[in-house]
This record gives sequence, C-alpha cells and structure tokens, in this order.
Amino acid sequence: MVSVDRNGNAQADARATPPAERGDSRTLRGRIRAWLELSVVRNTILGIIIFNAVTLGLSTSDTIQAEIGGFLRIVDRVVLTIFVFEIALKFFAFGLVGFFRNPWNIFDLCIVGISLFPASGSLSALRGLRVIRALRLLSVVPQMRAVVQALLDALPGMGAVILMLSIVYYVFAVMATLMYGDTFDAWFGTLGRSMYSLFQIMTLESWSMGIVRPVMEVYPMAWAFFVPFIVITAFSVLNLFIGLLVNTMQSAVEDDTEAEFEKLQLLVRSETDQVDSHVLDLREEIRALREELRANRAGPT
Amino acid sequence: MVSVDRNGNAQADARATPPAERGDSRTLRGRIRAWLELSVVRNTILGIIIFNAVTLGLSTSDTIQAEIGGFLRIVDRVVLTIFVFEIALKFFAFGLVGFFRNPWNIFDLCIVGISLFPASGSLSALRGLRVIRALRLLSVVPQMRAVVQALLDALPGMGAVILMLSIVYYVFAVMATLMYGDTFDAWFGTLGRSMYSLFQIMTLESWSMGIVRPVMEVYPMAWAFFVPFIVITAFSVLNLFIGLLVNTMQSAVEDDTEAEFEKLQLLVRSETDQVDSHVLDLREEIRALREELRANRAGPT
Amino acid sequence: MVSVDRNGNAQADARATPPAERGDSRTLRGRIRAWLELSVVRNTILGIIIFNAVTLGLSTSDTIQAEIGGFLRIVDRVVLTIFVFEIALKFFAFGLVGFFRNPWNIFDLCIVGISLFPASGSLSALRGLRVIRALRLLSVVPQMRAVVQALLDALPGMGAVILMLSIVYYVFAVMATLMYGDTFDAWFGTLGRSMYSLFQIMTLESWSMGIVRPVMEVYPMAWAFFVPFIVITAFSVLNLFIGLLVNTMQSAVEDDTEAEFEKLQLLVRSETDQVDSHVLDLREEIRALREELRANRAGPT
Amino acid sequence: MVSVDRNGNAQADARATPPAERGDSRTLRGRIRAWLELSVVRNTILGIIIFNAVTLGLSTSDTIQAEIGGFLRIVDRVVLTIFVFEIALKFFAFGLVGFFRNPWNIFDLCIVGISLFPASGSLSALRGLRVIRALRLLSVVPQMRAVVQALLDALPGMGAVILMLSIVYYVFAVMATLMYGDTFDAWFGTLGRSMYSLFQIMTLESWSMGIVRPVMEVYPMAWAFFVPFIVITAFSVLNLFIGLLVNTMQSAVEDDTEAEFEKLQLLVRSETDQVDSHVLDLREEIRALREELRANRAGPT
Repeated sequence: MVSVDRNGNAQADARATPPAERGDSRTLRGRIRAWLELSVVRNTILGIIIFNAVTLGLSTSDTIQAEIGGFLRIVDRVVLTIFVFEIALKFFAFGLVGFFRNPWNIFDLCIVGISLFPASGSLSALRGLRVIRALRLLSVVPQMRAVVQALLDALPGMGAVILMLSIVYYVFAVMATLMYGDTFDAWFGTLGRSMYSLFQIMTLESWSMGIVRPVMEVYPMAWAFFVPFIVITAFSVLNLFIGLLVNTMQSAVEDDTEAEFEKLQLLVRSETDQVDSHVLDLREEIRALREELRANRAGPT
Repeated sequence: MVSVDRNGNAQADARATPPAERGDSRTLRGRIRAWLELSVVRNTILGIIIFNAVTLGLSTSDTIQAEIGGFLRIVDRVVLTIFVFEIALKFFAFGLVGFFRNPWNIFDLCIVGISLFPASGSLSALRGLRVIRALRLLSVVPQMRAVVQALLDALPGMGAVILMLSIVYYVFAVMATLMYGDTFDAWFGTLGRSMYSLFQIMTLESWSMGIVRPVMEVYPMAWAFFVPFIVITAFSVLNLFIGLLVNTMQSAVEDDTEAEFEKLQLLVRSETDQVDSHVLDLREEIRALREELRANRAGPT
Repeated sequence: MVSVDRNGNAQADARATPPAERGDSRTLRGRIRAWLELSVVRNTILGIIIFNAVTLGLSTSDTIQAEIGGFLRIVDRVVLTIFVFEIALKFFAFGLVGFFRNPWNIFDLCIVGISLFPASGSLSALRGLRVIRALRLLSVVPQMRAVVQALLDALPGMGAVILMLSIVYYVFAVMATLMYGDTFDAWFGTLGRSMYSLFQIMTLESWSMGIVRPVMEVYPMAWAFFVPFIVITAFSVLNLFIGLLVNTMQSAVEDDTEAEFEKLQLLVRSETDQVDSHVLDLREEIRALREELRANRAGPT
Repeated sequence: MVSVDRNGNAQADARATPPAERGDSRTLRGRIRAWLELSVVRNTILGIIIFNAVTLGLSTSDTIQAEIGGFLRIVDRVVLTIFVFEIALKFFAFGLVGFFRNPWNIFDLCIVGISLFPASGSLSALRGLRVIRALRLLSVVPQMRAVVQALLDALPGMGAVILMLSIVYYVFAVMATLMYGDTFDAWFGTLGRSMYSLFQIMTLESWSMGIVRPVMEVYPMAWAFFVPFIVITAFSVLNLFIGLLVNTMQSAVEDDTEAEFEKLQLLVRSETDQVDSHVLDLREEIRALREELRANRAGPT
C-alpha cells in the first residue's frame, strides 16, 4: 500500500543527506551523528518508548499505583531525562538549522516539551498530557512516519473544499448564535458553543431528538436552518472524500499503466527498428547489385 | 484536484467575454466595468467581506456588543451600503441582461437582498440572516467559485437516483402519516412532520430507541415498515455515491490514458511511416535500376 | 451515468419484442397492444399516477379531509378502477404468458392488488398501504425503471458477502437470545427481538448508551460480544461496498479502454498492412525485373 | 467479484495437494481421506450444520423448548458427536502435521472445542457459545471460505495504518483515564473503560450528548481533547478505507489492462514479423537475382 511504498522513500530520504552536511565522521559532531543513526541506538530508544508507554498505562491503575507507584515515577523521570538528553545531543550534532530542518525533530521537541510541563497544583488536570510522549513511536518507526506523511500529503489537495466548508460552517455558527443564542444558551449561547453544537450536528449525533426537536418547539421553522446545514455539509464532506479518493487512485493507476505503455513503446520501437534495419540491408544489397551491374557493363564494353 | 483544475477555467471564462460585450473602455460604462475588474477593487471588496465576517462574529458576544455595539452597527451599515453600491454599479455597467447572465451576480443580489431585510419586531428571529452576506466570499474568490461549481456539476448526474429516492420518500411519508399519524401526532401527525421524522430516520439518528421502539409498542409490526425504509434509502444513497464516484474517476482516468494512447498512436504512425518511406526509397532504387538496365539494353543493341 | 446509459437499453428492450409476438396489428389484441404503447396513453397514465399521488398526499391533512374528503375518495376509486382496467387490458392484449414475462407487469399487479386490499375494521392500520400505488411512477417512467434495474443488477455480485453476513448475523442473534434473553427480555427475549436489536446495533444507533452499557451492568464481559459484532459487520459491509464499487468502476473503465485498445489495434494493423503492401509491391517489381532480365538474356542470345 | 474469482482458486488449492501427500488410496488412511472428500459426505455434513443451526434457533423459543426441548437436546448431542467424529477422522486421515497445515481445520477444531465447553453452573451465561458451531458453514461451503479469505487478505495491506491508529488510540485512552478517570469513573475509571468509551466515541454514538457535554460541565476544555480525537480517528479510518479500495481496484484494473496490453503486444509482434518475413523474402529474391546475374555474366563470357 501507499505507506509501504513510501516507507522505502522515507528511509531513502534519510540517507540522501549529502555527505557534506553530515559532517566529517572524524569530528565530535560527526561521530555523534553517526552514533545517533546506529540501528542499536535507534532500537534502544524505541524500546524505551514502548517500555514507558506500558508503565504509563500501568500507572492508570490505582492498585498498581499504590504498590509500585514510586518505581513508576522514577522510571518516568529516567525516561524523560533520556529523551531530553537525546534531543540535546541531536541539537549539538545537527546544529540549530539542521535540527529544525527535519520536521520530525520539531515533533519530538514539542512532545518532550509538553511532557516536561509541570503537572501540579491548578494544572493537575493536564498531567494526562505527559502520556503524549508515547506518540514518539510515530516519529521513531520509519513505517509510522510514512503513514503519517501519507495522511498529511492528502491534506493540501483538500484545501479548497475545507476552506469552503469552513466559510459555510462559520456563517451557520454566527447565524445560530444570533437566532437561537438567547433561548438555547447552553447550545448556541456563544460562537464557540454554536460551533461545538454544529460539529455535533454534522456528526449526526442526537441532532434531531437532542437538539433540533427541542429548538423546533420554540422556533417551528428551525428545520429550515438545520436540515440544509446537514445536507450541505454531508455533500461537501462526500466531495472531499471523492476528491481524495480519485487523486490517490489516479496516481496509483497512472504509475501502472505508464509502465505498461513504456514497455509497449519499447516493443513498437524495437520491432519496427528490426524491420527497418532489414529494409536498409536490402537497400545495401540492391545498391551492391547496381554497382556490380555498372561495373559489369563498364568492364566488358 | 478538480477544484484547482477548474479554477483556471473559471478565470478563463471571466476573461473570455467577447470584447464587443465588454463595451468600449472609452464610454463611462466601459470604464466602470474595467474598474470593477481591477484586482485592487476586487481585493478591497474581499477585504471588506472578511472584515465584516469578523465584526459579525464579534457581534454575537454580549460583552463586546455592550462595549462597541454602536461601532459594530455603524460598520454593518457602511458595509451594506458599499455592497448595495457595488451591485448598483454592476447593474449600470453590465446592463440588465448582462448582469443576470452571470449566475454569481444573481447569487450576490439574493444575498445582499436578504441582508437588507428588516430584522425588527416580529421578525427579530431572522436577524441572523444578515450574516449570510459572508457567503459572498464564495462568489468573490475564484477558487471558491470553482469548488461550488464542481459541487453543482455533480448534481445532474445524480438526477435520476435523486428523483427515485424522492418518490420512495414521498410514498413512505404519506404511508407513515396515514398509519401512525393518529397515535404519534408529534412525529407523524402531518405530511411535513412525517418527512422530517423520516429524514431523521434516514440519518439513523435515534431511529430505533427514539422512534421505532415506541411505535412498536403500539404497532408491533412497525419494524416491517421502518427497517425496509432504512435499507432502501441506505442502498440508494450508496448507489448515488458510487455513481458519482465512478463518474468522477472515469473522466479523470480517461483523460490520462487518452493522452497516453495518443502518444502511442503517434509513435506507431511515425515508426511505420519511417519504415514505409525506406521501403518506398527502395522501390525508387529498383525502378532506377530497371530504367538503367533498359537503357543499357537499348543502348548497346 | 449508469442509469442514463441503461435508460436507452431499457427502451430498446421494450422495442426489441419480436414482431411475431406483438401480434398482427389487424387483430383486436394487436390493436389494443399498439394502443397501450401510444405515448399519449402512457403519458395519460403517468399523469393519473402523479395526480393520485398528490390527492393521496392531500388526504393526510385532516382539514382538507374534512372539506373535500368525499371528492378525494371518489378520485381514489376512479383512479383505482382505471388501474384495474389497464391491467385487465394488458392481460387480454399480451396473454397470460406474455403478461408475466415482463417483471414490471408483475410489479404493477402486486401494487394494484395491495391497493385493492380492504382497509376497514381491524385492518384499518393497513390503509396506508394504498399509497404504495404511487410507486407505479417507478414502473411507468423508463428512466426510473432503468435506475431500479441498475440497483437490482448490483445485488447478485454482492450475493456471497450478503450470505456470509447473514450467517454471522444469525449466529450472533441466537447467541444473544440464549445469553441475554432472560435478563433483557425487551431487547433479546426472542430470536426476532435479538435480530431487530442487532440491526439497530449494526446501524450504531444508541448501541452503547442505549443497549450495551445497561447489559454490561449485569454481564460485565458483554463488550466482548458486541464490539466484535460491530467490527465484523462494519468490516463486511465495507467489503460489500468496495466489491460493488470495484465492479461498477471496472466495467466502466473497461469499456473505455477496450475501445481505445481496439482503435490502437486497428491503427497497428492498417499501418503495418500499408508497409506490407508496399513491400509486396516491391517484390512484384523485383520479380518483373528478374523476368525482364531473363527475357533479355534469352532474347539476344 | 473477488469472491467468485477466488472461489475457483480455493477449490483448486484443495485439489492441488500432491498425490504423495494424499496417501495411497489403497491404505486405510488414504481411503478415509478419499471418503471425506466425496461430495455426498461433504453435503451431508453441510446438511447437518444447517439442520443444527435451525434447531439451535428453535431452542431459543421458550414455547418450543417446553414442548420438544428434550428432542432438541438429543439432536444437539448427536450433531456434536458427529462433528467430533468427523474431526477425529480427519486427524487420523491427514496426520497431526497435515491436519494443522489447513487453517480451516484449526477453525473447525476451535469451533467444535468451544461447543464442547461445559455450559452449566456459574458458566451458564456461556451456553450461547455453542451456537458458534453454525459458523462451520463458513468453513464447509467453498464460496464462503473464499469470501472469508478475501476479507482476511485485505488485512495485511491495512497493517501500518491499523498500528498507527492503535498507538493514537492507546495514548488517548491513557490520557482520558488520567484526566477524567477520577471524576467520571463509569466512563474513564480504568484503561479498559476508557478504551470502551473511546470506541463508542469513535463510532459517534452519543459522543456529545451522552459523554462530552457532561464531561465539559466539569472540564470546560474537554472538547479540545475529544474533537481532535474524533477528527484524527475519522480521518485515519477514511485513509484505511481509501488504501483498501485503491489496492483492490488497482489489482482488478491491472489484470484487465495487462491482458489487453499483452494482446496488443502480440499483435504488434505478429504484424511486424509478417512484414519482416516479407522483407527477408525480398532479400532472398534479390540475392537469387544477383546469383543469376553473376552466373549469367560468368556463363556467356
């Protein structure tokens, strides 16, 4: 599939860095770079991420927390220290520009940064965010990088439709706030609440029984606002999907048939060239015959 | 994608207006027309629309309304005046026929007309409608025009299935009204209510827990009405979608392969023509040889 | 689209009836047949169907019923009489075998039969069924016939997956009845109720909040039954859809490319034949030359 | 469709077993093997499975259970004995290695094993599991085997996206448990509960009215957790689907066009070969002419 195909590319990209940029392997920075790219180092990091993902999962259980909570907290700190150290090494090895040139480094930096966020006091609700570091699996495993890349590659082609959808969405949200905001404060009281409620309606969750029927009891014509909204957004999302699908399909089919066409062109060329060369041989033969005849005529005369 | 491809066309269309129709740039109407199509004028209008969309969004907040409500109302009036003036100018510049020939002008006219609607007294619920003018973004930005065009272009191909779906929908709505209208007045009391309820059922929202299970408590066989309705409409919508997809895909793939086939045809032609010309050269050669022999024979004899 | 393509075929089919079968237009049966196929007769029937669909819609309103209910009932009877008369004519014109050979006649017969159903007394709930006659629009308008035909044509290709889905569905229904039937009688009390509830779960309507969470309060492992059910059926339906889509697409693309390939084959043949004929001309030329030389040699000697 | 195509293959596979492995039909094991593959034996087993599926369905009705419950229980035991006997025979006929080489035998073994599970006492809730033996229909009917095979074949191509989805899913589940577990114990109290709730949210069932709105009353920013979760998973599932679709389509279209390309290549080859052979004939002709002339010249001189 796409991901598998791109997988190879992703790895190829990593290796395509010009040697000049990689630095001389004899300098310290060059040696650190080489060391960071060793498969044993990569796999150790991968192992640490998986191990930490498991310990983070275990820490959700109160029983386990009570028994080995202290140990889990130490593991957490050690792992975080390793991650910070790894990023610091990369910073040193690749330099400021080289580091930020690779978007996956920025991804890692953000994730480790969020994990370092203090999760005490009034922000204790945010302590869940440190689990986000398990997402580093996506940046460390090349196959996962390729899948994420493929998902992101799909976005630009969808730009225009997404923009149109956003405009329609915004207009409907403002209208809903102005029209139903006073009566149904919890659903349409502010622009943000309207946007959330319209997103819920777009996913078709309880749109009628939960929202539109109660609204219709006050404003009987409310269906004339919500039903078109559902139809327009559903139709737009459908077109988004079709556009995406046709694009993916087209490039996949194209590559295949192009190869076949090339093969066929080569065949046509080689076959006709063969015939042509035989025809040209013939010409030589006839020319030779003509020469012979002329020589013959000239000779005996 | 489609939209991007059509984007170019959309602009091309705008420029394809025959010069005769554009009027002489020396007359007043011609000069206004030229002025309206200046990119600086277009971008100013676009900026005003975006600015107004933001102020309309801000006006949904009671706090902001209390503080700068007066200013927002003035902005609103000024913007509306500009829009009316712009449309009046277009009317003058293109004439009645020229104006209505462009469907986007009609779209703008409707939207500005709705915005002018008085929103006081008993119609205060409709004041939300004035936000609709932000939809002018769709008619001013060429990329957005193209996306909307692409969505509308998809409709005719779906005509027959939509008509069939409508017939089935109407028949089920009448049946539901006749059969369940007396007992479940809120859901199936009138044809309109039945249509709304069946639309809800078609989107699968609370169809069973919310509607069909309560109905089955009175009419135990009601599932034999609603389950087929769901299956038929789901299957029809699926076919609608497949038809749309196959159509889009087919034309996309066709364009590609047609180009490849053309290339191959050219190759076959040029290659065989080359061989053929060599064969014809050969013929000349042989004819010349024959002439020579004849002359030879005739000469010495 | 498909429907439009098939539309032509559908009409073509109707006209492809061999003349022998149509009967001699001089006999009474032949003349009735010809009369039934007149476009004015067809359009009158179509008009009656649409008119009746509207009056049936009007009859759902109590207000209108109170005012012109008597008139509507008379219209209903007159229309029904016309339909019965039309079918009787067709019976006479085409004979028993000829009538039943056309599936649309059987469709019409069933629909008119259902409309004739007495809707009084204990069966008053069934009076809604008479509206079903508006579905004759599907059998009278050729485009609609084509759409329905296209939908039905899609079914056989889905046979194997539908059968598999039915087996899985049946097994899960029996299991649900045996496991949860005693405790949750309303949902899984009988095989029928289980099937209905599993259909609801398959459409994802209130599956968790409405059914599985309450069940899990009694049987905490119930998720291990319902979640796989959802995943398996969703995956099967997806495959059903993909199979259908690939089939439709394949035949659409195939037709296109086949035509292109045929064109290319013709080109290859004509081009090489041209070269070949020139080569054969050449041979004649050389043979003639040889003959001449021989004659020359033989002559002067 | 795919299934139909693979159907033939599935049967072909069964017959492709090398004769050496089948054993000599003169030994006892060979004769049992041949007997097990007789269509009459296969059809009898199929009949028994269908009959048992019906009796299992009947046993869900309390009325029928009361009347012929004893008979149904006997049927159940007899059928189970036949199944065990059949598997034992296969074991003997194919040997340990030969038996486990066919995954469908493992499937049958599991299903019969589950059916033998004691369903009394504290495990009475599991008695539903014995119905699972009706799934043997999938392993006995070759068409069904092919459909299941096709569904399973689709899985590996989806591997990378499923893995990515699992990582994201796990991270969100741990986060939800840590952030909302204390306040909403029933939904996010443990990792398992969070996973179930997120699966429910992924299917969009009551995600807003049922779960997110109540959560937002305590944590007003909860939408910033759940809305991205819905968008990411929806987008990933969409890509999963597109990948699957493109793969299926590509191989289907490829097979078709490849055949066409092969035909065209053969045509190009045969046509040019024909021309070429004519050209070569011509050469012979000219050579013969040259020889003649030389002989001529040599002769008379």
